[in-house]
Amino acid sequence: MQFDVQALLKSGVTLTDHALERLLPSPDAPPHSIHRAMRHSTFAGGKRLRPILCIEAARMVAGNNSLDHAAAELGAALEMIHTYSLIHDDLPALDNDDLRRGQPTCHVVFGEATAILAGDALQTLAFQTIGDLQIPADAIVAILREVSSAISTGVGADLPGGLPPGMIGGQVMDIEGEGQKPTAELVERIHRAKTGALIKVSVIAGGLLAGASEDSIARLATFGEKAGLAFQIVDDVLDMTQDSAQLGKTAGKDTASDKATWPAVFGIDQSIHDADELVADAFAALAPFGEDAAPLKALATYLTTRTN
Amino acid sequence: MQFDVQALLKSGVTLTDHALERLLPSPDAPPHSIHRAMRHSTFAGGKRLRPILCIEAARMVAGNNSLDHAAAELGAALEMIHTYSLIHDDLPALDNDDLRRGQPTCHVVFGEATAILAGDALQTLAFQTIGDLQIPADAIVAILREVSSAISTGVGADLPGGLPPGMIGGQVMDIEGEGQKPTAELVERIHRAKTGALIKVSVIAGGLLAGASEDSIARLATFGEKAGLAFQIVDDVLDMTQDSAQLGKTAGKDTASDKATWPAVFGIDQSIHDADELVADAFAALAPFGEDAAPLKALATYLTTRTN
Repeated sequence: MQFDVQALLKSGVTLTDHALERLLPSPDAPPHSIHRAMRHSTFAGGKRLRPILCIEAARMVAGNNSLDHAAAELGAALEMIHTYSLIHDDLPALDNDDLRRGQPTCHVVFGEATAILAGDALQTLAFQTIGDLQIPADAIVAILREVSSAISTGVGADLPGGLPPGMIGGQVMDIEGEGQKPTAELVERIHRAKTGALIKVSVIAGGLLAGASEDSIARLATFGEKAGLAFQIVDDVLDMTQDSAQLGKTAGKDTASDKATWPAVFGIDQSIHDADELVADAFAALAPFGEDAAPLKALATYLTTRTN
Repeated sequence: MQFDVQALLKSGVTLTDHALERLLPSPDAPPHSIHRAMRHSTFAGGKRLRPILCIEAARMVAGNNSLDHAAAELGAALEMIHTYSLIHDDLPALDNDDLRRGQPTCHVVFGEATAILAGDALQTLAFQTIGDLQIPADAIVAILREVSSAISTGVGADLPGGLPPGMIGGQVMDIEGEGQKPTAELVERIHRAKTGALIKVSVIAGGLLAGASEDSIARLATFGEKAGLAFQIVDDVLDMTQDSAQLGKTAGKDTASDKATWPAVFGIDQSIHDADELVADAFAALAPFGEDAAPLKALATYLTTRTN
């Protein structure tokens, strides 16, 4: 089936942006500075990948779009978390990035103090949004557990004393690894934690919202994990092969700082091959959903064939 | 009744510290730096005021200590939030404090990047801990809503477009107000948001954990609000009248930076009078609980008569 992925993306962005508009405090609500900072970074042209995955997972499990309103609010919470992590990551003490998606970063516009607190507040608002979802309490608690674990300090349960991979854990490993020659194991571990865990949980959360069975959740988790890793590999390749204007952010920065990236370790050809293989695995996990899986599959294909 | 408040404090600290020890990732779990930073600040000699209020509120409503285990874990979550806010507040871009409770602050020991992420991770772990409480899902959701609202960007629902007072809102107002002559209204607003909201919700959360009625929650909220404000007023007075060695932090800093404090606006005598009156109001709210309220009352008295 030919699937109109552009229409799907557009509808997902609209749903998400409406939810964010409702949920974020007004720029005129006191204290203004932080509310404006939160909105500046949240409405800076993100792809809304995580919300769209959440919405499409909920639609696939429900078999219709009756849960769109709640799924969009949950997706907005995931986008708030993503935005908080970007604001803090861009700070002078961390990546020291002045430009993100073609816009000046939060601390450049609002100062460091407000940027730190705006990131904090977005994390808080994400959990507040999850708590306020109009779904059964059991589902809220299940989502709360999965999301909080996915953005925690874990780097991999296979390590001695290790916790399941989590977003902050990935950021810490990324910082610690800078300036060292990256190994294949380290790169994969950072990717799974830093960006993979939140993408994976976006798919899981959409499924939990729609009351998916344990087996369906496991399949969604596999899909999210594989597609998320493929997305990150393609991101790394684009950083190496495109210029700043095309990317809307400082290109080649990963290479310059010896960041642990996939193509730096495996080369560009192998990276593209790996991404393709991961997408095939992601597709396989959704086989039992038949035609209902078409939107999620189209999304995964789009994410790994994009050019910016 | 003569109440042994020292024994109560000691038992509360022990319960809380055991819960924190269980819940915080091991210092040997990778990535080490952030886990050590989280523990450094969490175990830096805090009074555990918020957990103790939570535990005692749960005991009062339950009429016994059967909920101590869950209440201590919830209290530990509140302490993680308190610690996260202190770590970020101490950063060079905010208050730039090198010393807290007689110990070097998080960024002094671990660097700014790790301190920022350790604060982030403590907020996340707090919500993860709330999600993992072994209590009915309805109670978890009620606690999640109250706690996330209490640490949000609100500064007061009485302002045009204003949200209920929240911890981050208070921090922003505090920063924005620095260098200006504080007014009575601003000082009260900042106190209610910056420290008051988290103290108040600690009492509310303990009540929700124990399944308190709506009327009991309203009474606990009044108690928490009044006692919390009294506590902060006494804190301001101590900052003005004691030296750094007695306080374990840089004394007189509030005055030096024209911080909005109670004694700066009302004078020391009036401040002490106000604190006493607030404690009387706090006591009155708990009248229907009779003798069961003795521990919470003893705590409020202790907090406003302490000397450090």
